[in-house]
Amino acid sequence: MSAASEIPKDYTPQSTATLASYLANVPAVSAILGGDTSDWTVFEVGDGNLNLVFIVKGPKGGVAVKQALPYVRLVGESWPLPLSRAHYEHMALTEQARLVGRLVPAIHHYDENLALIVMELLEPHIIMRRGMIATTIYPKFADDISTFMAHTLYFTSDLALTADRKKAMIGAFSGNTALCKITEDLIFTDPYRVAELNRWTSPQLDPYAARWREDGDLKVAASRLKLKFLSSAEAMLHGDLHTGSVMLTPEDTRIIDPEFAFMGPMGFDVGAVLANLLINYFSHDGYEQQPGERDQYREQVLAMAETIWTQFHGKFLDLWRGNPTGDAYPVSLFQGSEGESRLEVERQAYMDRLWVDTVGFAAAKMIRRILGLAHNIDLEWIEDKERRAICEARILTLARDMMVNTANYPAVTDITAAARSIRAEMKSY
Amino acid sequence: MSAASEIPKDYTPQSTATLASYLANVPAVSAILGGDTSDWTVFEVGDGNLNLVFIVKGPKGGVAVKQALPYVRLVGESWPLPLSRAHYEHMALTEQARLVGRLVPAIHHYDENLALIVMELLEPHIIMRRGMIATTIYPKFADDISTFMAHTLYFTSDLALTADRKKAMIGAFSGNTALCKITEDLIFTDPYRVAELNRWTSPQLDPYAARWREDGDLKVAASRLKLKFLSSAEAMLHGDLHTGSVMLTPEDTRIIDPEFAFMGPMGFDVGAVLANLLINYFSHDGYEQQPGERDQYREQVLAMAETIWTQFHGKFLDLWRGNPTGDAYPVSLFQGSEGESRLEVERQAYMDRLWVDTVGFAAAKMIRRILGLAHNIDLEWIEDKERRAICEARILTLARDMMVNTANYPAVTDITAAARSIRAEMKSY
Repeated sequence: MSAASEIPKDYTPQSTATLASYLANVPAVSAILGGDTSDWTVFEVGDGNLNLVFIVKGPKGGVAVKQALPYVRLVGESWPLPLSRAHYEHMALTEQARLVGRLVPAIHHYDENLALIVMELLEPHIIMRRGMIATTIYPKFADDISTFMAHTLYFTSDLALTADRKKAMIGAFSGNTALCKITEDLIFTDPYRVAELNRWTSPQLDPYAARWREDGDLKVAASRLKLKFLSSAEAMLHGDLHTGSVMLTPEDTRIIDPEFAFMGPMGFDVGAVLANLLINYFSHDGYEQQPGERDQYREQVLAMAETIWTQFHGKFLDLWRGNPTGDAYPVSLFQGSEGESRLEVERQAYMDRLWVDTVGFAAAKMIRRILGLAHNIDLEWIEDKERRAICEARILTLARDMMVNTANYPAVTDITAAARSIRAEMKSY
Repeated sequence: MSAASEIPKDYTPQSTATLASYLANVPAVSAILGGDTSDWTVFEVGDGNLNLVFIVKGPKGGVAVKQALPYVRLVGESWPLPLSRAHYEHMALTEQARLVGRLVPAIHHYDENLALIVMELLEPHIIMRRGMIATTIYPKFADDISTFMAHTLYFTSDLALTADRKKAMIGAFSGNTALCKITEDLIFTDPYRVAELNRWTSPQLDPYAARWREDGDLKVAASRLKLKFLSSAEAMLHGDLHTGSVMLTPEDTRIIDPEFAFMGPMGFDVGAVLANLLINYFSHDGYEQQPGERDQYREQVLAMAETIWTQFHGKFLDLWRGNPTGDAYPVSLFQGSEGESRLEVERQAYMDRLWVDTVGFAAAKMIRRILGLAHNIDLEWIEDKERRAICEARILTLARDMMVNTANYPAVTDITAAARSIRAEMKSY
């Protein structure tokens, strides 16, 4: 359906009653399930905001089925959302599979007219955010997510692609406007103005919400980030890379749900990961029965954030050194040891600029989860509103400074140090 | 033909023998010409590098006909170039006509299969570059070109467009890869490496060409500009906005030939204009019979460069203040007098960033005309190679400093002052 937002004539939303007979006509899927429809169980499990998600199990195996609805599931038909997002998700998944296949679910079947993707059933994986609330340790995550980001961002950038292939990708994703607009509105705009969809822990954070709407420096900084999001086609982004888009076990990591994918600024993906770890770091004060009982996990979360950036930095640069196949910084300009050493200095400078973007986008992602529409269960599940408000106020305090005084955070350790110190010093909201 | 580079089945290059009978079947055109084919005269006048250009005159009036060839005319069939460039030129002309109709030629007819555009015949307009070599004064040019740039760039940017319309334009132009690649190679890459197509005034400038290939800081700066060209989709660019793309009289200005149009960084267009004025400024030393006889014109050229930036700056900001209809810097964030005054500070900062881009791109455009494939007649027509080399060496000296030490040129007067001082002090190449 390309970029069109129309509903195909033969589109029908699936249900637990209809899905099995549909899948029976898809040989690749019925072979995985084994037996026939009478042996299959179908559950609707979607806990996301946008789509239908089913798990289907048969005697031999299971699959996950994701189908787009022509509206936002969370809100209903009053908020239409084009089915074409399944097209973009499928396109992004296909590209990610090519680049880092072991880190995304395998695709078994795609039906463009039904806006429906049948994928590998990930078991016993859980959503990372839930695991982190329960202080589960994921020793492989830093390595895996840094690989995912380094490969998907590097290989879809001008550093790896020729300009014609890069422009073809820009064209291919340019129709995913409705999903981009959700980001543009909910992340870069609404938290900084009166907006019907905003919500926050009230009345505790009312003064923050009010200050945010009056804070000129902050609004300018958020608007600069929005402009970058609108106009910098650096690489194919996942576009929604928070801990709710990760399913994993301590041994295996999978990145799901790239329906927000488009060609945008790399720092947006990297910042999303760091933001969600920082949110989780601050959230544990809402859960501790005894002060300090989660200290060790907290520190592991910060260490994970540091490792992710450090490893991403190293892996991205290694890919650049080993695969300089793009039209940017052409190899032919930097021959010989002198050329190579000058280019290496520039590679570091390139990463420094990417870091600046990352800090800003991370801050925007932190703020939107506290003052905007969509919140994180890391914070939402804290029952005591007073405690929750303190956690959230700390996050807002760090995020505002990251966004407005980005130059004060030249290294990832500057952020983690600031997080520790804000947590230690801010005793009330 | 969208982005496809195929040759349509019914494509045939026109000639002075065939064109009249083709146009006879186009009522809009034959009405302009009057009479019938036996009354019409057809001349082939293309002096550009890429296309066929005809002038057709009849008893009532005349038209200009531009047809793309499936290769680069200057080089021949060994350098294929897709006919789709006519599609992009037509699309850009149409958009420019909507925005600044009086500054572009009217389109009478477009034939996608023939890659052929019939346009208003511009008489007695001449190519601006020729006029400037002959020290013709164009009192309206600064006003007109600043209006052209302010309107075409502002109204196709995120400041004026909603994100969905902007992304649609990005998609629509994303196929113009072959023309973009000419820029990418010839402007940002070849002058900084050994490339078969490079040429320069030799042996006089041999040491410059050699130094350029070894200058790490310069190559990094050029590569950063190239990366910006590849990845910053800020607005619809003309893409080739030099004084050879301007036809004018002292009273009337028209911008032609937007076949390089795509969604790119605004500073590339603005820089192109300034670069070509600076080249012209330095060229007059190659023509003077008596030293100083062109002093007055020289100063007028620099004054024109200053006025263009100053007026562009003012007009762009006025459009922003008056038409804040885009998704970037949304009006709703900057309400009230405090919001407006904070936004005004940011508008100035935005223009400062655009200026930095402009200085860099101007420098790249100056260098490519001296060390790359395509040269300007401003310099080429200087018969004495020694004198030409001095002019060119001065341009290279200024351009290198603009590109590497951009921060030393915070205002357009810093560039014009440097131009004066380099001309006064550099007595040999």
